[in-house]
Amino acid sequence: MNSYENPLRDSQDRRLPRIAGPCVLVIFGVTGDLSRKKLMPAVYDLANRGLLPPGFGLVGFARRDWADQDFAKVVHDAVKEHARTPFREEVWEQLLEGIRFVSGTFDSDESFERLKKTIVELDTTRATGGNHAFYLSIPPSGFETVMSQLAKHGLVERQPETWNRVVIEKPFGHDLASARELNAVVERLFKPQEVFRIDHYLGKETVQNLLALRFANQMFEPIWNNHYVSHVEITMAEDIGIGGRAGYFDGIGAARDVMQNHLLQLLALTAMEEPTSFEASQLRAEKKKVLAAAHVPTPYDRHTARGQYSAGWQGGEPVIGYLEEDGVPADSGTETYAAIRVDIDNRRWAGVPFYLRTAKRMPRRVTEVALAFKRAPHLPFTATDTEELGTNALVMRIQPDEGVTLRFGAKVPGTQMEIREVSMDFAYGGSFTESSPEAYERLILDVLLGEPPLFPRQEEVELSWQILDPVLEYWASQPGNPEQYLAGTWGPESSFEMVARDGNTWRRP
Amino acid sequence: MNSYENPLRDSQDRRLPRIAGPCVLVIFGVTGDLSRKKLMPAVYDLANRGLLPPGFGLVGFARRDWADQDFAKVVHDAVKEHARTPFREEVWEQLLEGIRFVSGTFDSDESFERLKKTIVELDTTRATGGNHAFYLSIPPSGFETVMSQLAKHGLVERQPETWNRVVIEKPFGHDLASARELNAVVERLFKPQEVFRIDHYLGKETVQNLLALRFANQMFEPIWNNHYVSHVEITMAEDIGIGGRAGYFDGIGAARDVMQNHLLQLLALTAMEEPTSFEASQLRAEKKKVLAAAHVPTPYDRHTARGQYSAGWQGGEPVIGYLEEDGVPADSGTETYAAIRVDIDNRRWAGVPFYLRTAKRMPRRVTEVALAFKRAPHLPFTATDTEELGTNALVMRIQPDEGVTLRFGAKVPGTQMEIREVSMDFAYGGSFTESSPEAYERLILDVLLGEPPLFPRQEEVELSWQILDPVLEYWASQPGNPEQYLAGTWGPESSFEMVARDGNTWRRP
Repeated sequence: MNSYENPLRDSQDRRLPRIAGPCVLVIFGVTGDLSRKKLMPAVYDLANRGLLPPGFGLVGFARRDWADQDFAKVVHDAVKEHARTPFREEVWEQLLEGIRFVSGTFDSDESFERLKKTIVELDTTRATGGNHAFYLSIPPSGFETVMSQLAKHGLVERQPETWNRVVIEKPFGHDLASARELNAVVERLFKPQEVFRIDHYLGKETVQNLLALRFANQMFEPIWNNHYVSHVEITMAEDIGIGGRAGYFDGIGAARDVMQNHLLQLLALTAMEEPTSFEASQLRAEKKKVLAAAHVPTPYDRHTARGQYSAGWQGGEPVIGYLEEDGVPADSGTETYAAIRVDIDNRRWAGVPFYLRTAKRMPRRVTEVALAFKRAPHLPFTATDTEELGTNALVMRIQPDEGVTLRFGAKVPGTQMEIREVSMDFAYGGSFTESSPEAYERLILDVLLGEPPLFPRQEEVELSWQILDPVLEYWASQPGNPEQYLAGTWGPESSFEMVARDGNTWRRP
Repeated sequence: MNSYENPLRDSQDRRLPRIAGPCVLVIFGVTGDLSRKKLMPAVYDLANRGLLPPGFGLVGFARRDWADQDFAKVVHDAVKEHARTPFREEVWEQLLEGIRFVSGTFDSDESFERLKKTIVELDTTRATGGNHAFYLSIPPSGFETVMSQLAKHGLVERQPETWNRVVIEKPFGHDLASARELNAVVERLFKPQEVFRIDHYLGKETVQNLLALRFANQMFEPIWNNHYVSHVEITMAEDIGIGGRAGYFDGIGAARDVMQNHLLQLLALTAMEEPTSFEASQLRAEKKKVLAAAHVPTPYDRHTARGQYSAGWQGGEPVIGYLEEDGVPADSGTETYAAIRVDIDNRRWAGVPFYLRTAKRMPRRVTEVALAFKRAPHLPFTATDTEELGTNALVMRIQPDEGVTLRFGAKVPGTQMEIREVSMDFAYGGSFTESSPEAYERLILDVLLGEPPLFPRQEEVELSWQILDPVLEYWASQPGNPEQYLAGTWGPESSFEMVARDGNTWRRP
């Protein structure tokens, strides 16, 4: 085999685009931010790329007293403002024909009767084939009611050759027990394979590239283990505060909001063994294995850290502290910074700490997975030669500035052998002419196609809570509030001490 | 230990610049191109960087009827035109005080008497300490005479606390036998440790960086072997033809001119085991070991290729063929393209072909070492996903565009898993503010310091000829001239067939 050039493309083999089959997408909570900024634009982008079928209907369900055309106007404006691909009148016109709105409340039978009629009408006039996806872009507290109504009004009827799916968003509960309860509500009506849990991080190109990087290449796997890796850092830092989201965030906190889902999913993808294939059940099996082997080591005061931002500076502007934010109780104990060490008890990772951290009001917005490698066991250089040699690191930059960075030692130009740390860089943006689909574009398409690999199953949700619950309980049991850190800094003292105990430091991303 | 930040610099530990001690540098053949373009500018650059001692003398020896000031003018002009560092009058003035010229021929006793007087005078007036380096920038045919004269006139006298060194340039013979004869001539007068053979490639920053890359980092060593490497390519391509160098080149050919020295040295540095330290004897021991384990596999018609450029195009201009070049006999059998496969019989490299190639009139000028990795043994993707996945490769770019490139597979943005080959890049120029010393700057300083790691010893020269001699003999025994290749192309058909037999292809650098 020619190892540099690509094998000849067989024209028989060229991949066809995966186009969704006929269906109706019903969005509950269609007036929310997520719907307007992400879901509607993603639906349009899919249509624009020719990935939606002609027989497609989009139904909005919300309390507003809108007619179809009012809702269509909202979708239109959302698309114009937020879509990734250019606006094309003919695509819009076709999409428009399948747009409907149902005004109503979750507890109103009459509303659900109208919803049913609307769907049946679309099935007939748009030939949507009796396939229905219900997207619950609503707080979990509404799930029970919606499920009952869907059942009561016969909206989830199983007929041969048709499908029903439900899409839910985090939070998947606030601990293991509530996650189980919530799931019981959903799975009373839908089978496990019909439930699509959105972790939008898994829809990101750069997260999927983590799989490509690890498993399509020969050179990374040999060093992807505790012989060579010193520790792993998974960071999701936001520069913003909680803004207007106090109602959602307070009482939840950074660990529940981000760590339980995004960060532990990133950990799973980084640490799991190679699946036989990316078929959903194979991938899921590997993720479950590694999550089941993971735990936060005790004592928790040594291996976790939490904090709350106090007034400080961000981008040259003074900003207020968390406790002064609108809607946050003055004595709130909710953490805006959370860091934990996760150990993975298997042969590949024993002895390698995985540090997970997420916070608001950091110096900059960045999500990355960084593998820090051990130093070479022997250096044939003198000590002064390698004074400025750090450790090798492979950094997968999830966002922004998507790409991969390799840190390694190179010779400093000069007549002496002096080694300094340098970077090698791959930028996603600079390397591909293809532009990246939005995570929601990918995930909505996968829902309509019924392709589940990028959606965590309930077992993963539960395993993640099992990892996090003891820490959350420990934190809740501690007197006093989380340690303060200045807005615009990298977190509280205890977070630095936590890694320093292991002889490590956090990267400055 | 903090693994991301550098250990604190101990001020006690800061390296001092290595400054040469008092000495005289005598250059034979001082009117040649090398001397003017490389040696004189390098001497000035060293002076400008404060790396030459106050007690330094530079003596030119050549046939011209010049006075000291005529020679000084030549040096001055060469420095102004070719020096790397800015011209500073005060540095020049100080250098000037030690510049002398001796006019004469190699066979003239009287000339060598004047050379001796000049050196003695410098030893006294400039306090050069009786330390003398003789740089033979002359054809090997002149070595015997110069050695005799140096001996006869007592120019290489060993006194306590002083040193004598001789510097010689390739070609170190044209085969094993002649290399031994030539060496016998030099080592009759100088001890092995007093002989500095210049392979200017070893003075290049990027070649030394090969050592830094391999041995200062943890991440490359685990994959630096036949488990992961498919094959290695070492290329030195020139875009120019032989120009005015027919007199030197014809009858020598590409293999003797470049492969025996530069390419086999690059092979040694790429393939050798890690030395305990970079102390000269340790480094040399490892290079010798790997060269001793290397051979070109038989039959040579299958594992070697040679060619001669015919008229073609270069940079949009028509260029003439080798046989039409000025001074080249119309029936010359000299190769301008040479490629060989080298196998290394040790545990690390058994089964990994090292392909070496060098040629003139290639599409572009490039020197690089490329490790091509095997494909991953299992891909959890579908075949179409990885259609455009090449092999991973680590390319060390020696010149121009110095740096390191890593080729690997990444996910193409889009809603399907499609892997394509991308590059990660480290550019020497962009990463360091320090500018790179010229190879000769480094090497001349090392001669004056008596630091031999970057100079091959006679054993290495002989081992290299042992590898090459059978191929040269085979080529000489073949009827007919080397295969023609169009100027401006990547070489003759046979060179492509040679690697294709192993299932490989040459990289397009």
